[in-house]
Amino acid sequence: MATHKLLLLPGDGIGPEIMVEVKKIIAWLNARGKDTFETDEGLVGGAAYDAHGLAISEEDMAKAMSADAVIFGAVGGPKWDDVPYEVRPEAGLLRLRKDMELFANLRPAICYPALADASSLKPDVIEGLDILIVRELTGGVYFGEPKEIIDLGNGQKRGIDTQVYDTYEIERISKVAFELARTRGNKVCSMEKRNVMKSGVLWNQVVTETHKNGYQDVKLDHMLADAGGMQLVRWPKQFDVIVTDNLFGDMLSDVAAMLTGSLGMLPSASLGAPDPKTGRRKAMYEPVHGSAPDIAGTGAANPIAMIASFAMALRYSFELIEEADLVEKAISSTLDKGLRTRDIAAEGDKVVSTAEMGDAILAEL
Amino acid sequence: MATHKLLLLPGDGIGPEIMVEVKKIIAWLNARGKDTFETDEGLVGGAAYDAHGLAISEEDMAKAMSADAVIFGAVGGPKWDDVPYEVRPEAGLLRLRKDMELFANLRPAICYPALADASSLKPDVIEGLDILIVRELTGGVYFGEPKEIIDLGNGQKRGIDTQVYDTYEIERISKVAFELARTRGNKVCSMEKRNVMKSGVLWNQVVTETHKNGYQDVKLDHMLADAGGMQLVRWPKQFDVIVTDNLFGDMLSDVAAMLTGSLGMLPSASLGAPDPKTGRRKAMYEPVHGSAPDIAGTGAANPIAMIASFAMALRYSFELIEEADLVEKAISSTLDKGLRTRDIAAEGDKVVSTAEMGDAILAEL
Ligand SMILES: CC(C)[C@H](C(=O)O)[C@@H](O)C(=O)O
Ligand SMILES: CC(C)[C@H](C(=O)O)[C@@H](O)C(=O)O
Repeated sequence: MATHKLLLLPGDGIGPEIMVEVKKIIAWLNARGKDTFETDEGLVGGAAYDAHGLAISEEDMAKAMSADAVIFGAVGGPKWDDVPYEVRPEAGLLRLRKDMELFANLRPAICYPALADASSLKPDVIEGLDILIVRELTGGVYFGEPKEIIDLGNGQKRGIDTQVYDTYEIERISKVAFELARTRGNKVCSMEKRNVMKSGVLWNQVVTETHKNGYQDVKLDHMLADAGGMQLVRWPKQFDVIVTDNLFGDMLSDVAAMLTGSLGMLPSASLGAPDPKTGRRKAMYEPVHGSAPDIAGTGAANPIAMIASFAMALRYSFELIEEADLVEKAISSTLDKGLRTRDIAAEGDKVVSTAEMGDAILAEL
Repeated sequence: MATHKLLLLPGDGIGPEIMVEVKKIIAWLNARGKDTFETDEGLVGGAAYDAHGLAISEEDMAKAMSADAVIFGAVGGPKWDDVPYEVRPEAGLLRLRKDMELFANLRPAICYPALADASSLKPDVIEGLDILIVRELTGGVYFGEPKEIIDLGNGQKRGIDTQVYDTYEIERISKVAFELARTRGNKVCSMEKRNVMKSGVLWNQVVTETHKNGYQDVKLDHMLADAGGMQLVRWPKQFDVIVTDNLFGDMLSDVAAMLTGSLGMLPSASLGAPDPKTGRRKAMYEPVHGSAPDIAGTGAANPIAMIASFAMALRYSFELIEEADLVEKAISSTLDKGLRTRDIAAEGDKVVSTAEMGDAILAEL
């Protein structure tokens, strides 16, 4: 029986509302008398900016660094559209990813059977869909330098971003992809634009090399990222694990998420390297969706992606596989019973609130 | 009655086969006795590499520069997977775009009524779809320097690409988007990642500024590019004109193309700035699909995207609006009659060859 330290960072918009539903699950786990969870809470994004002019305070960063896992809601909203770039809400999220070295972002896109109809795709295209996007999260154009706007005079400015990848960064993320593939369909598709980008050429080479050295049992394919986007729309079930860089991963995982009908359903895990001494990985769990400021406070938010993200924490940070399975099954059976938040409701469905959905999942447990 | 100089660059794979079908249309136009077309032909991509070790020869580049329009097939194939980066097939295409300064890439995604069923999306999501992606084509990460792989020693390499945009590049592409929007639904959605990229911040500012100075009659929205990809899948009909950078345009236009059911259907136009003296724009027309080496030589290729690209040439380079309309209507009615190449055939459809499809379109004319 272990005690785990969680830092909850609800953030902005619907973040706090959906975090409330996770707290219910945590309370249930604590009452169960197996592992227990100690929670602390912090501010991130616009909420942190309003409190102390930063997208995350040094104090909360320190808490994140020492927590066993960070549970992250969502950041951003029109309220902070005009704050300086360095302290915009997203900067808090990006700093957490970078300083915690969370290089591996796992984004499953699964289609819940009860929701196959909610998709804009034909049911046979997405029924049973189960793909995992492994996105590199601490490199590429997100963090490369120079990253700046230069004033050239004459009313001209120049915006510059730099895409940079080193061998070791590509190697470690491909290992994560190969290892995860072994626990699933044993297939990896690597996506880049090697026909245009030098970083894509290197990406392709290193993934191929890594595959040769110890992962030949896994089937490896390569696809250009634009063709990959297309194939995701055409026939997503051809994929098992997709491994790709930070920016392509951002785009492709959003497309993949939308295939399943609702972004409000999809969780993600961001993992660091195992600590050489303890074997522990730093980790952060967050829904793929954003802060949805337009529906914040109305009780319309879907808490499922947030709760499913916490289930990923149980699985990947705490090896509480049974508990993770329980939570995921509770989500499924709640959906099977017909409960729908507004985003996933079809015409005629009874719509429940954020809290009602959370309570129903809890009741299933 | 004018004479127009066309340079045909069939390229690799199915390129030459689909170009044959365009030549039939050109012959028909010449026989019609209005404007006439003089055609010359050159090599590009793997074909050019095989002939003279370059992705396009200086001679063919010179022809392209002086032609009234270039009609481009497709380049690439596994045969050239291991040729040096500088002379890979795509380098020919990229050099044409860059040296001809074809900064404006127009990619319509329309859903032919006869084909609504071929899409992986539900019919109501794509029926009547008519969007236009205006992609910046001579800037961004495609051409920015440094673009290189550095050997860091210790078995480590570093791949670098640079995303660069200057004010004037963003301004001219947004003007194209606003002007085209006026001829359509009068709505532009600009997509970037200003929450992560400085070039995205500048992009957003310049588009907003350009809109203020003379285009306020057009409705302008902004969307993050990842959300844009998602919204294209969710409800594409919300868009009219989308304006975006080179790399996002590459990804988003491929996703948009796939919404319509077949990539084999979609044309594109790449335009330069009007010549200050003659008003003429340099221009190249190419299908959005690639060289499909797997089906090259089998007669399975769909010539429609290529023929529709030529129709765009009639419209944008030669102001032969009536002729462009005729060709586009001939494509539509051929589809209405049930003719299908393999890529767009449903079960039970009679499948026709590349040449049969071309002849049928010609017969409609
Ligand atoms: C909020 C934003 C900075 C972030 C990203 O671009 O990575 C988001 O889109 C995501 O995918 O997690
Ligand atoms: C062939 C390739 C270089 C090209 C691109 O990336 O621009 C293609 O994907 C396209 O969209 O025209």
